[in-house]
Amino acid sequence: MSRNKDLDLFFEPRSLAVIGASMTRGKPGRVIIENLLENGYRGVIFPVNPKYRKILGLRAYRSVKDIPYKVDIAFIIVPAFLCVNAVRECAEKGIRAVVIVAGGFSEVDEDGARLQREIYKIANAHGVRIVGPNTSGIISTPGRLVATFFPLGKVPRGSISYVAQTGNFATHTMRWILTSENFGVSRVVGLGNKCDVDEADVLKYLGDDPNTKVVGIYMEGIRNGRRLLRVAKKVSRTKPVIALKSGITEAGARTALSHTASMASNDLIVDFAFRQAGILRLQSYEDLINVAKAFAFQPVPRGNRVGIMSPSGAMGAIMADACEKKGLRVPSLKESTIGKIQEISPKWLKINNPVDVWGPITLCGFERAYRVSMEALLADDRIDAVIPILMLVKEFPTKSLGFIPKLNLKHSQKPIMVTATGDEGLYKKAKRYLEAFRIPVYTPLEKAAEALAAMYRYRILNSG
Amino acid sequence: MSRNKDLDLFFEPRSLAVIGASMTRGKPGRVIIENLLENGYRGVIFPVNPKYRKILGLRAYRSVKDIPYKVDIAFIIVPAFLCVNAVRECAEKGIRAVVIVAGGFSEVDEDGARLQREIYKIANAHGVRIVGPNTSGIISTPGRLVATFFPLGKVPRGSISYVAQTGNFATHTMRWILTSENFGVSRVVGLGNKCDVDEADVLKYLGDDPNTKVVGIYMEGIRNGRRLLRVAKKVSRTKPVIALKSGITEAGARTALSHTASMASNDLIVDFAFRQAGILRLQSYEDLINVAKAFAFQPVPRGNRVGIMSPSGAMGAIMADACEKKGLRVPSLKESTIGKIQEISPKWLKINNPVDVWGPITLCGFERAYRVSMEALLADDRIDAVIPILMLVKEFPTKSLGFIPKLNLKHSQKPIMVTATGDEGLYKKAKRYLEAFRIPVYTPLEKAAEALAAMYRYRILNSG
Repeated sequence: MSRNKDLDLFFEPRSLAVIGASMTRGKPGRVIIENLLENGYRGVIFPVNPKYRKILGLRAYRSVKDIPYKVDIAFIIVPAFLCVNAVRECAEKGIRAVVIVAGGFSEVDEDGARLQREIYKIANAHGVRIVGPNTSGIISTPGRLVATFFPLGKVPRGSISYVAQTGNFATHTMRWILTSENFGVSRVVGLGNKCDVDEADVLKYLGDDPNTKVVGIYMEGIRNGRRLLRVAKKVSRTKPVIALKSGITEAGARTALSHTASMASNDLIVDFAFRQAGILRLQSYEDLINVAKAFAFQPVPRGNRVGIMSPSGAMGAIMADACEKKGLRVPSLKESTIGKIQEISPKWLKINNPVDVWGPITLCGFERAYRVSMEALLADDRIDAVIPILMLVKEFPTKSLGFIPKLNLKHSQKPIMVTATGDEGLYKKAKRYLEAFRIPVYTPLEKAAEALAAMYRYRILNSG
Repeated sequence: MSRNKDLDLFFEPRSLAVIGASMTRGKPGRVIIENLLENGYRGVIFPVNPKYRKILGLRAYRSVKDIPYKVDIAFIIVPAFLCVNAVRECAEKGIRAVVIVAGGFSEVDEDGARLQREIYKIANAHGVRIVGPNTSGIISTPGRLVATFFPLGKVPRGSISYVAQTGNFATHTMRWILTSENFGVSRVVGLGNKCDVDEADVLKYLGDDPNTKVVGIYMEGIRNGRRLLRVAKKVSRTKPVIALKSGITEAGARTALSHTASMASNDLIVDFAFRQAGILRLQSYEDLINVAKAFAFQPVPRGNRVGIMSPSGAMGAIMADACEKKGLRVPSLKESTIGKIQEISPKWLKINNPVDVWGPITLCGFERAYRVSMEALLADDRIDAVIPILMLVKEFPTKSLGFIPKLNLKHSQKPIMVTATGDEGLYKKAKRYLEAFRIPVYTPLEKAAEALAAMYRYRILNSG
């Protein structure tokens, strides 16, 4: 079996064992099965626990070796000291993929590190690949697989994949995404201590994965940097690879060190290496959401020239600053564009970029003011992308925002990134409405510019 | 009358005229009266409009000169070309304070600028002070005065005041604050074109205002820089003055220029001047909310040493990075602190700063894990402030967060800045709950560190 093909077992297993399955409400060994059932996993689930005959209606086995069927992958949810034996049994059973959830290995002390090496040795000798230890599990919506010990409910399918040296993305950060965003995910892996499978392995898999459009990486230490960069260079030519590296300050590094047992690397070297590999480096945790969403929803802009629409001069100035600070431009408009917007504006209003839509609003109402201005900007060949700052008040109901998806469809080469002012409740509604049409909505203001700038940087980075 | 005392009329008027009052739903001349009534303005309101005898139950007058009582202030909501006459009539009536809402003055063209100069000349000759033109009005909750043309509903009282070269803070940004935050405001002024009253005037007033604890300024151009800085230097010694200056890039400056007709100034000079004057410079619009809230709710930290509590190693590393990038420190803990947290942790867990609370959570549940760790950090004399990253899941209900306000009260010199992961719905609930106790809650993660760092910078700036 080739190394790469092995990972298929992690993301598209036809059968799986849960070693350490539990009946107890809230226990990881139960939650993982609940997540699998709730998400309609179509393969076979084999709970393993000598204490039970059935768990959640599924026949339970004393040992993984007692399962009379082929098992593609095992999720091992027993304490660290039991893991050596569990992995050995998996190997003997012919299982080629295991995920080890327990902590207490190299992230703790030398004893733990020794245990981890032992496990790796056994696995490697039998051609077993390991994700973890010290991880949260795997999500793979194309395989209807939500195998994580944190209660997630239904995880919608989407085109964003996450590879993280933390379990957050398969646990509480996923809940944040599920409750505050309107996008789904494709593959999500918490790598934990990376005793075997690492970022490069997963990235290689995701590069060839038709279900993944953009890859978000969170990392603390880099083990095999050369290989990762080589893989990233290849993948980033076909799809965006965005990454946040923590541990860039002394205190952050100290945490990262004790957390997943790897050395934090020199920040400038990381910067340089990422650039070489076409990896888009992020500066904040939420950009793993914001920027990924931009790539998942909108086309990469052809250039950096932004048309801004603002209901207030101040917000227009702030947005223009935010754009230019991040390497975008806010150019002047074509005469014909100005003419179209002038038609709906008070005579005294000087039309410029940012377009001040408040004037038009007072004359012809919200919908027409925004629609005509947006259409004019999108038709202007000096403009590569449009950022409307919507004023969300009850006079501008969500259902009248239909012109935005229509115009987005018509001018499909030019990304539209929305932000807003007004009522937070209306903002949430408008966000849900527009994001159903794959138009990303951000708050605060500057985030729309930052996500657009990230897309433009991706074009520049990978145009060579 | 001294210049300063004049401003009392803007913030604590006992009677006011609305010139251009209207019966038409949604018109500025009606909304302003609705806002006044809804907020229980205790003075007398005189609508002025020759077309009506009564407006919203109030007796209307043909002209301001027909009002047979003393009028402290007039809000002029008629088109630009009618404003000269309106101001003249106000002067003749003996009104000493006017707010001019209309646009179409110096922000438009030379004709507008001429009109504006004419108005100023008349006003100045009669000792009338002007706010505007081209503004949104005034909010002053201690005077129960919500005199703005944007429907706001009830505006709660608080200790934050805003002076802005934009109407946003008395209109749609105020709605954002009212719907997404849990703090009230004191005085809010949109300065518009600043033909007379400017930031320095208002800042001077707010410096002496016992109802204002922190002043947020948004500005585009600076007219009388020396005076502003002189005033700010004095005010910032007794209360924080935070400011966002837009127009720092070419495009931003172009917008600012056409918007309120003032030159954008060189950015580095602004930086230097602000520092000299003790003004805390902000980098994003939302920091006018985030940082103001921190000052309004929590004490300024005595030093820059932060104790972090995180439910995940990754978030701890990210928070530590965010703190150190902004000039805060994440020091190691005292032995006694480590001992207290070790008691509730799995034996193998190495206690460090950031504190990994996940270990304690698995042993003794959310409430105890967070409470014991927070108490230990607050008691540590190496720690000046604490940032807990709460994991908000149903197992950690909002009502069990009571230990945070209790500990905040007990250690009242050490700010607590909260952020969270988990469900957005639970986040909103926890935010409402904690902010009722004046404990500020932020998302995303990094914002808690940034707000704390801003408070620390204020201490450094003003400790000389």
